[in-house]
Amino acid sequence: MTREITAEIISIGDELLIGQTINTNAGWMGEQLALIGIRAKRVLTIGDDRQEILDALANAQSHIVLITGGLGPTKDDITKHVLCDFFGTRLVRHPEVEARVVDIFVKMGRDPKDILEVNRAQADLPESCTVIKNDKGTASGMWFERNGKVYVSMPGVPYEMKVIMSSGVLPKLKEKFVPPTIVHRTLLTTGLGESMLAKRIEDWEDSLEAERIKLAYLPSPGIVKLRLSTYADADGTSAHERVDRKAAELYERIPELIYGEGDERLPRVIGRILKERAQTLSLAESCTGGFVSHLITSIPGSSAYFTGGVVSYANAVKMEELGIPSDMLELNGAVSQPVVEKMATGVRTALRTDWSVAISGVAGPDGGTPEKPVGTVWIAVAGPDGVISTKVNFPGTRDLVIERSALAGLNLLRKRLLVAS
Amino acid sequence: MTREITAEIISIGDELLIGQTINTNAGWMGEQLALIGIRAKRVLTIGDDRQEILDALANAQSHIVLITGGLGPTKDDITKHVLCDFFGTRLVRHPEVEARVVDIFVKMGRDPKDILEVNRAQADLPESCTVIKNDKGTASGMWFERNGKVYVSMPGVPYEMKVIMSSGVLPKLKEKFVPPTIVHRTLLTTGLGESMLAKRIEDWEDSLEAERIKLAYLPSPGIVKLRLSTYADADGTSAHERVDRKAAELYERIPELIYGEGDERLPRVIGRILKERAQTLSLAESCTGGFVSHLITSIPGSSAYFTGGVVSYANAVKMEELGIPSDMLELNGAVSQPVVEKMATGVRTALRTDWSVAISGVAGPDGGTPEKPVGTVWIAVAGPDGVISTKVNFPGTRDLVIERSALAGLNLLRKRLLVAS
Repeated sequence: MTREITAEIISIGDELLIGQTINTNAGWMGEQLALIGIRAKRVLTIGDDRQEILDALANAQSHIVLITGGLGPTKDDITKHVLCDFFGTRLVRHPEVEARVVDIFVKMGRDPKDILEVNRAQADLPESCTVIKNDKGTASGMWFERNGKVYVSMPGVPYEMKVIMSSGVLPKLKEKFVPPTIVHRTLLTTGLGESMLAKRIEDWEDSLEAERIKLAYLPSPGIVKLRLSTYADADGTSAHERVDRKAAELYERIPELIYGEGDERLPRVIGRILKERAQTLSLAESCTGGFVSHLITSIPGSSAYFTGGVVSYANAVKMEELGIPSDMLELNGAVSQPVVEKMATGVRTALRTDWSVAISGVAGPDGGTPEKPVGTVWIAVAGPDGVISTKVNFPGTRDLVIERSALAGLNLLRKRLLVAS
Repeated sequence: MTREITAEIISIGDELLIGQTINTNAGWMGEQLALIGIRAKRVLTIGDDRQEILDALANAQSHIVLITGGLGPTKDDITKHVLCDFFGTRLVRHPEVEARVVDIFVKMGRDPKDILEVNRAQADLPESCTVIKNDKGTASGMWFERNGKVYVSMPGVPYEMKVIMSSGVLPKLKEKFVPPTIVHRTLLTTGLGESMLAKRIEDWEDSLEAERIKLAYLPSPGIVKLRLSTYADADGTSAHERVDRKAAELYERIPELIYGEGDERLPRVIGRILKERAQTLSLAESCTGGFVSHLITSIPGSSAYFTGGVVSYANAVKMEELGIPSDMLELNGAVSQPVVEKMATGVRTALRTDWSVAISGVAGPDGGTPEKPVGTVWIAVAGPDGVISTKVNFPGTRDLVIERSALAGLNLLRKRLLVAS
């Protein structure tokens, strides 16, 4: 049994409690800790309040306590004073830190004699701490040790915190605690909801325990991430092997559902395939109203394969820009197989691309009928081998129908690209 | 001295601790609580771990404890079992909740007899709780009371949590705790950055103190929200009057910058004006790649005034779909005044609309030149009176350039619509 090293994060700042600033620091820190085998077991977010901070420090139970926020130069920033009280020490000016603070202001064009005392006071730090250099700002990191536990205080500005963590804190933590290695792999799926997916891979999931692998389902609209994690064995190698073997089994089981790993995104996966083959893409969007186009063009370099698209919201635009015959629209309605297929072939011809995706549906909240309720969406993909289409029904709000339709359209294209390879 | 009502938030989920999901729920909840006069004093984020959850519940010290996460249908979701242990109760199936769960799956096209037991088990809820309906998903809200304190458990999926909070939890909290009334008004501005805006309204801001009004600047990309808030006076009326008077002064001072209030959105403001006048809109997007179109069509009912758009990423599409002469493109480049104006008039003519917006710019990270660096964006609006255009330079990443360009395009249209009225 390996000894588990745990950490907790104390995020300090009134702005975090009223939704003015979203606490993105804690997640990033937890991720960085996980990568070196330290488990963040809790995050406590509190205001700039002396008693709250003291209580949080006193109640911390982990090997490592990482504190962010409240180190600015203004009166409401009280963290370092509270740290002095907690550790029974006092603030002393650190000349080398003061020199760095002065240097930062000089680089910003300030005359050294005009630097305010309130800014120089950023170099007043607790006597008993080890100072951790901040190359990006005036607030230093502070490292304390007591009863075998480590406490580190850092500024709350994300890029300052990140540089202190990466260059100063994480290396020191690894050296001090020699944590066990955790191996992670996250497989990204789309096309099946969480519970249907869980049923489909139930026996595979049951087989994970024997391999000491933990599985987490991480759902977001249209996507379910599957995270496998395990502790490294004493020999340090077989954990990767165990996780890789189980991941390979999953690839065999649900190849059409897995579109990538880690922080991959579906439009990037598609972009990579198209780029490799020097092929191009166009879009004809009705109910998604430009959202697929936005997802595609949010990837840097997408102009290499994406030529453009038509957002055909009105039927007149479907007829004139995409060549849909008016009697086809009248006979079938805009949300229908013949129309969506003609949208796909129409935009592919007009924009002269290798591939095209077309989407037409009822996003709601209005516009549904008994035959075509809100959430009814037709998707088509046209390519060198012709056109295919499929009908889906999505629950949820207008935003969710749009989001899920876009993902489903991209996934149909991905699957078609794989078959065509 | 009014009695302060405090709340704490317990966010449950392993994914929050390793940075896979950013905890946006807690900030939103804190903001909503603040709006009804309840102070969120801490947020505790923990994993899907029985003992951690029990400890968090036992150590909670506020009047109100709001719990999110861990209510999904899979094995790692343990929150409701732990709640049963903590409150000494047991799970019982709630038939009306089961009927709602079945209904959700039927609407998705599932046959009732194919609905999995694991999904039906979402209707197994603690016997002693008051169930709070979830209209958006299968996990219900649960309201417990003990020793004068309220505990509410909600799903972690943001849109499900939000609907449960808004329709069920916040009204019940107001009724039970009768917190001091806070009067808010939030004015939404676009077109000036935070510090420039602050300088422009400096003396107005200074005059707020005498009226006991607090001002908060809430910046997000392209937008600065100005929130005025004050405690209600004993008579309960003059607080509104004070805030309204100061808001009216601001409308006089910066009419071109304020596009709405509260949670208003620029595309909705534009939609309302167009609808009132029975006018129509089309779009020609290059660097924004469909994002403006997405913003417009995310508003329900936008098909009444939005006919469609062309995403002209490749120059060939600009020429063929929008009628840009090839020598104009060669002479000026795609990111230029003549091209963006021709894009606007071209799409207005092709799609036969009253108004059109066109955007062409360098979103980056590549494609910048010394004359046209990344962030250079041309925007044009064409209407019954002709076409106008403007050049802007936005700092920041690709995502930010796209977002700011889209907002600037919509705001130029809004200002043009106001003048044309």
